[in-house]
Amino acid sequence: MTQRQQALNGTVSPEMITVAQYEGLDPEYVRSGVAEGTIAIPKNSKRSFPDVRGIGKGLRTKINANIGSSPYHMDIREEIEKLHAAVHCGADAVMDLSLGSELIYIRREIISESPVTIGTVPIYQTAFELSSSCRDITEMTIDDYLKTVRNQAEEGVDFMTIHSGVTLQALAALESQKRVLDVVSRGGSFLVSWMKKNGRQSPLYEYYDEILDILAAYDVTISLGDGMRPGATADATDRAQITELVTLAELTQRAWDKGVQVIVEGPGHVPLNMVQENIRLQKSLCKGAPFYVLGPLVTDCAAGYDHIAGAIGGALAAYFGADFLCYVTPAEHLRLPTVENVIEGVVASKIAAHAADLAKGMKYAIERDTEMAKARKNLDWEGQMRCCLDPDKARCTRESSEIGKDDVCTMCGEFCAIKRLNEVL
Amino acid sequence: MTQRQQALNGTVSPEMITVAQYEGLDPEYVRSGVAEGTIAIPKNSKRSFPDVRGIGKGLRTKINANIGSSPYHMDIREEIEKLHAAVHCGADAVMDLSLGSELIYIRREIISESPVTIGTVPIYQTAFELSSSCRDITEMTIDDYLKTVRNQAEEGVDFMTIHSGVTLQALAALESQKRVLDVVSRGGSFLVSWMKKNGRQSPLYEYYDEILDILAAYDVTISLGDGMRPGATADATDRAQITELVTLAELTQRAWDKGVQVIVEGPGHVPLNMVQENIRLQKSLCKGAPFYVLGPLVTDCAAGYDHIAGAIGGALAAYFGADFLCYVTPAEHLRLPTVENVIEGVVASKIAAHAADLAKGMKYAIERDTEMAKARKNLDWEGQMRCCLDPDKARCTRESSEIGKDDVCTMCGEFCAIKRLNEVL
Repeated sequence: MTQRQQALNGTVSPEMITVAQYEGLDPEYVRSGVAEGTIAIPKNSKRSFPDVRGIGKGLRTKINANIGSSPYHMDIREEIEKLHAAVHCGADAVMDLSLGSELIYIRREIISESPVTIGTVPIYQTAFELSSSCRDITEMTIDDYLKTVRNQAEEGVDFMTIHSGVTLQALAALESQKRVLDVVSRGGSFLVSWMKKNGRQSPLYEYYDEILDILAAYDVTISLGDGMRPGATADATDRAQITELVTLAELTQRAWDKGVQVIVEGPGHVPLNMVQENIRLQKSLCKGAPFYVLGPLVTDCAAGYDHIAGAIGGALAAYFGADFLCYVTPAEHLRLPTVENVIEGVVASKIAAHAADLAKGMKYAIERDTEMAKARKNLDWEGQMRCCLDPDKARCTRESSEIGKDDVCTMCGEFCAIKRLNEVL
Repeated sequence: MTQRQQALNGTVSPEMITVAQYEGLDPEYVRSGVAEGTIAIPKNSKRSFPDVRGIGKGLRTKINANIGSSPYHMDIREEIEKLHAAVHCGADAVMDLSLGSELIYIRREIISESPVTIGTVPIYQTAFELSSSCRDITEMTIDDYLKTVRNQAEEGVDFMTIHSGVTLQALAALESQKRVLDVVSRGGSFLVSWMKKNGRQSPLYEYYDEILDILAAYDVTISLGDGMRPGATADATDRAQITELVTLAELTQRAWDKGVQVIVEGPGHVPLNMVQENIRLQKSLCKGAPFYVLGPLVTDCAAGYDHIAGAIGGALAAYFGADFLCYVTPAEHLRLPTVENVIEGVVASKIAAHAADLAKGMKYAIERDTEMAKARKNLDWEGQMRCCLDPDKARCTRESSEIGKDDVCTMCGEFCAIKRLNEVL
């Protein structure tokens, strides 16, 4: 039985208890959230891992790090290093988006090494395997796709991005309007080209029930992909995006009806003034299903620093109700990220998630900020390092200065406001 | 005559024309904003520099970079390097916060080298000079202070942070409540200790008119310092902060009445959910005077990455109406920033400012985002680099990958969604 089926039966599973303990909540709250669909616990029933987490309403904002090889760069050790770096810095989930000849091997290693939930995008493997036998993704049959989904589920993948919302209707919306940048989702581009070539409805929509049957058998959480997400702020919240979102709402209900846990994916490139409405719309249409946003990036012009554009959008999105933030690294739009980029991306997302949780009044976040402020007041540097979201970087930054063992920092030195006030007040 | 006095007389000054040209606005709009006080043009009448900018309503969000030596680290060449790096990356203003024996020499060099407006905090010099003769800032007389202000005005400083809002009333508010972290403003801490020691009202409030007379004589813009700004999210929007803000509103009117241009400084550490109310409150109390925020930082726990916490708060603040963002560097709370830190801080603030201007519908920002999106669609990498807020970093990131002369990037390679869609649609 899936977590959802257990929750609907009134059973509090061990996973729900783990989630509740981590959040400091009553297990019954978690069970009822899973039953309502407002909480998902992405964990394949064939897999065990220590850091089982819930994603959704009333829980801490979670973050995901995308790793994986590309045809240009394949190094299994480096991907494992990225996995551990991401988890060390606080990633709650990792998606393996590998492409290239070693993708199966890399995925298996990541699943075996990961203490956190693992997600994939099965159509990448299907596309790569077809390509390896000189066939294009437009020649994909539903059996090719279902075989990949089944194999990955069998291997223990916990959540999968499935682009069943990229339909003829969404394509019609895309074509009947003029986007600056058509489709930037790899999965979305595969299905758009499939439909254009074959002149019929996407098999991922046509055979959605068959996909769900496999996911239900392994309790794989479906992450409903947003293949029509805007890749430019000029295209945000347009007809193609919202047509797909309406379909994702239908697909959410159909997945729930089959006992499958659901996460809904969202944009993308979204200007600051549209973040709130994007979150509210998804929450309303999808009946409170957890929302997993890719950034969002609040400008197109931050290449080299897209982790910052993503942190701005992510903080705001999470404050308005997004549950799960997909990180963006400084390498976005430019190259496959390095290990260092992964760390920068995870920390930026953690800052966004923490800032949102603080603004929502979540106790853990308020306590951490207060503990930091007290350590600052006491000029307790070790205490400050403990409260930092990345203590290694903070320590290294301080130690690179001329401060030695002094109790202030080289910014103000003896003119430290805190030190003066501690003496005066 | 100050810009304000000219504007009130109906004169459109050459500086107003420069500002209008940069913004793509009618000079009359700028004149009327300067007359109303909603726009300031910080430029000392004794100084000439090319990049004269306006700060305020209807104009692009501006950013400031703080540089300057500390007693631990004094290197004039490094400070000049920071100045040029900050301006190169898009800083509209630079504040020299130098402390240490070479502070006068460093300031003169910065003023002479800078193509942008230069700000200072005169009480730092007063405090350092007293300290050099073994006297504490609590022994400061108003003449000590006025002498510094006069000297710096004579040297050409364009705007000065003056902490006249740190009064006995604000101190009473501070003491009658319990803050986690009392005062984190250097200037604030000097004046609090002065009032505690001398048991009477701050001379910067008592002799405010005398200060204004000097500023008016040189058209130095007053930047009303927020010595009571919260240094912890737990202390945000409290009685001490708002008591000072009410005084700053009074001081704004008094400065305007003497023909002095005004900018009002604001927090600080502010959780995401309080940013909007902080901006609205300042705009209402201070009759639309330009608002200059220090970050704000949306969490206390981001040391090592405070430029990101500041970009989140800054983007939101600017969207809600803040006009001028003071950058925060990754070194904040840890050490004096390096040149590299200055660059990271400026770019993070530029992203925040740009994202806010985009969300406010400003044409320049929309055009830049659209140009970037078109370059992406065309796989025009040189075009993309031109649109980046930091082309150097973006180019370097891409070139560090295995991509060579290929037209995609190493993230997706041949599976590039944009390339596929360009072929299909």
